[in-house]
Amino acid sequence: MKVRVGIVGCGVVGTGVVELLLKNSQTIRKKTGIELILSKVADRDWQRPRSFHVPEGLRTHDYREVLEHSDIVVELVGGKEFAKRLMHEALDRGKHLVTANKHLLAEEGQDIFLKAQEKGLCVGFEASVGGGIPIIKALWESLVGNRINAIYGILNGTTNYILTRMLEGGITFEGALKEAQERGYAEADPTLDVDGWDSAHKIAILSYIAFGGFFPFSQVYAEGIRHVNLLDVELGRELGYTLKLLAIAKRREEELEIRVHPTFLPEEDPLAKVSDVFNAITVEGDFVGKTMFYGRGAGAHPTASAVVSDIVDIAKYMVSGLPCRRSINWEEKSYKLSQNFYSRYYLRFDVPDRPGVLANIARVLADHHISIASVLQKEKVCKIAGREKEHIVPLVILTHKAYEENMRHALQEIKSLPVVASEPVLIRVEEEAE
Amino acid sequence: MKVRVGIVGCGVVGTGVVELLLKNSQTIRKKTGIELILSKVADRDWQRPRSFHVPEGLRTHDYREVLEHSDIVVELVGGKEFAKRLMHEALDRGKHLVTANKHLLAEEGQDIFLKAQEKGLCVGFEASVGGGIPIIKALWESLVGNRINAIYGILNGTTNYILTRMLEGGITFEGALKEAQERGYAEADPTLDVDGWDSAHKIAILSYIAFGGFFPFSQVYAEGIRHVNLLDVELGRELGYTLKLLAIAKRREEELEIRVHPTFLPEEDPLAKVSDVFNAITVEGDFVGKTMFYGRGAGAHPTASAVVSDIVDIAKYMVSGLPCRRSINWEEKSYKLSQNFYSRYYLRFDVPDRPGVLANIARVLADHHISIASVLQKEKVCKIAGREKEHIVPLVILTHKAYEENMRHALQEIKSLPVVASEPVLIRVEEEAE
Repeated sequence: MKVRVGIVGCGVVGTGVVELLLKNSQTIRKKTGIELILSKVADRDWQRPRSFHVPEGLRTHDYREVLEHSDIVVELVGGKEFAKRLMHEALDRGKHLVTANKHLLAEEGQDIFLKAQEKGLCVGFEASVGGGIPIIKALWESLVGNRINAIYGILNGTTNYILTRMLEGGITFEGALKEAQERGYAEADPTLDVDGWDSAHKIAILSYIAFGGFFPFSQVYAEGIRHVNLLDVELGRELGYTLKLLAIAKRREEELEIRVHPTFLPEEDPLAKVSDVFNAITVEGDFVGKTMFYGRGAGAHPTASAVVSDIVDIAKYMVSGLPCRRSINWEEKSYKLSQNFYSRYYLRFDVPDRPGVLANIARVLADHHISIASVLQKEKVCKIAGREKEHIVPLVILTHKAYEENMRHALQEIKSLPVVASEPVLIRVEEEAE
Repeated sequence: MKVRVGIVGCGVVGTGVVELLLKNSQTIRKKTGIELILSKVADRDWQRPRSFHVPEGLRTHDYREVLEHSDIVVELVGGKEFAKRLMHEALDRGKHLVTANKHLLAEEGQDIFLKAQEKGLCVGFEASVGGGIPIIKALWESLVGNRINAIYGILNGTTNYILTRMLEGGITFEGALKEAQERGYAEADPTLDVDGWDSAHKIAILSYIAFGGFFPFSQVYAEGIRHVNLLDVELGRELGYTLKLLAIAKRREEELEIRVHPTFLPEEDPLAKVSDVFNAITVEGDFVGKTMFYGRGAGAHPTASAVVSDIVDIAKYMVSGLPCRRSINWEEKSYKLSQNFYSRYYLRFDVPDRPGVLANIARVLADHHISIASVLQKEKVCKIAGREKEHIVPLVILTHKAYEENMRHALQEIKSLPVVASEPVLIRVEEEAE
């Protein structure tokens, strides 16, 4: 069976998809019996340099030509406004969709998914999370027999590179960001990556599938790594923890917590060992237990691999003649996300090295039902502006699990203690054992 | 749509599948629209204790009752003879199959696959490799756009546990095996695991899919860990390597190498960090690059998760009314496996601590076109029977890549040198850099 595939947006990933389809379509036909025909590729600018030559006959400036000549439309323009219009138009014309647009799907995907479902059309988005890592299919198909309890992901290569360099190279956030930009791992404006929004988009998408319902993206908590202090990375390591920008989605009874923030993981946790630009996702299902998926989370070729797996899946649906039925809203419910997280905490206070300080802080924590697991007080002196003459030391407290609201109130109170020299540092800790 | 599922063999995994189907079939229906009906479960012995209660009405002693009442037959009896008869009978009666039987599929799966293909029936075997890790689907579907160049797997939990204990606990193979048996990780007769056959079965199955052709299982090279000496585990660590029982399948131009043997991996390799009973598989595709899949490679619940993913996939095929088409022989060719592996080597010789010894050995290696990458000579004295009075030291040589045949000839010659006090140790090294 022949299936016509058109691409809108021929940047890095689009060019990768063209290359894959032109190089490996024979292999795909042998594996599946499906003949993928690359029909048209639309881009505004055919002059810019590309890593692979797109044959002249395939090129167009007009996305409508792609819609006209394709059964499956691959949206790779990114951004929100045009992409959204394009997807709606494609669905209205009865075309199946493949996209890598996590930004749009996470924030405004609901309309698109519902329209596709209504029309029996497919929307493939394997490439939107984890590059070439087949996490969407794993959640939807391989783990179909499981009730998913939690997902933990290192979903952004840029921030993982920065944190790896801070930990291994002992350099500050600013230095590591600069290095990442020089190597092409971070954009000139790194906001979406560094402030956690890219990871938040991705964990939202995984959560829609895993938990079978929508929620307002605005309820996803995102905290980036811009404020991460090298001192905490190093103190954490002394305590046996590795700092990662972790995206977390977990079910607690009937509540969902979905959040992205710097997180200490025990150094023996497989996710703690994922370094540089690599991504990894751990899924916990009630039967499968823990599984982890690891690979390159970005790049033209890995992402093209994911796009093509969606194309082939959709082509198989087309062969069957059945409507596509991958209902993203399979629980038929909407979730309200909890903001009162339940977690362990690493706290750092800069305090004078004199008796009674720990007692004061511990008292406030206890008043808010927060139980201390361990304490580390370093002799090393911190230089706090204006107080250089005093002996200020970092006091680190690891707590047992506590509710975020209690923690917020406790910190508010602790900040007002005269002994606390600067803003307390709070980093959440994910750890199986209590 | 309702699909009737029957199980033959209600041991540990079979009981896990019953539990999953009875607990989560509602979730599966919501996710997929498919209603899985557990029709019958056959076992010879309904008296033995089970971790989950199988309702009386489902039980039978007669596998033919399962065939009678099911659309999909799940074979979980294991072993070869009866399982094979059962599978053929099921296919002859037009039933789809799901199995975890790697032993049978690897050694004699060809007939079963071909019969199923001819009849348009499905054979699901996700559970045969890596327990709950969805590696079969990943190879077949998620990486469909790739030409697979290599697969590296830690596919056997028992041996991985033993090697982890040797490395971390500093105990011998015998001690670690005993510990594994006490913990229920190794069977009373550990031959299939310890001698590498279980891993060999699994890498053969992955290779059928990845490379699209059959080969005689007898050509798969399997070397276990029974002879692994703690000294080499520790010397390897000093050199920055971790010893694993690695299953390897790689394409070298048009040749395939498929082999299982103790292997040194650089300690920073993600596979080197996979410890205890966990399994992991790295797949290298021409587009996706390296991806890794990690999880529990055995156990009732993870394996049940894999079995059920196959059941759901098959049910979807049934809905479509199309014949199953997952041709395991998609390249339509048979492979002859190369036995002349191309690899780096770790060599250890026990030699007297006197001048000229290294020169002699190096000369023989050079004569056979084997180039030395580095040398480690320890001052530590080895006790070699009958030569206690001489100063015998381990001499470790790491080579660059060389052909196995050349290595065999060189070792033959080196063994005959009067200075070599005992059988040389050869361990292959997998490393990207030369």
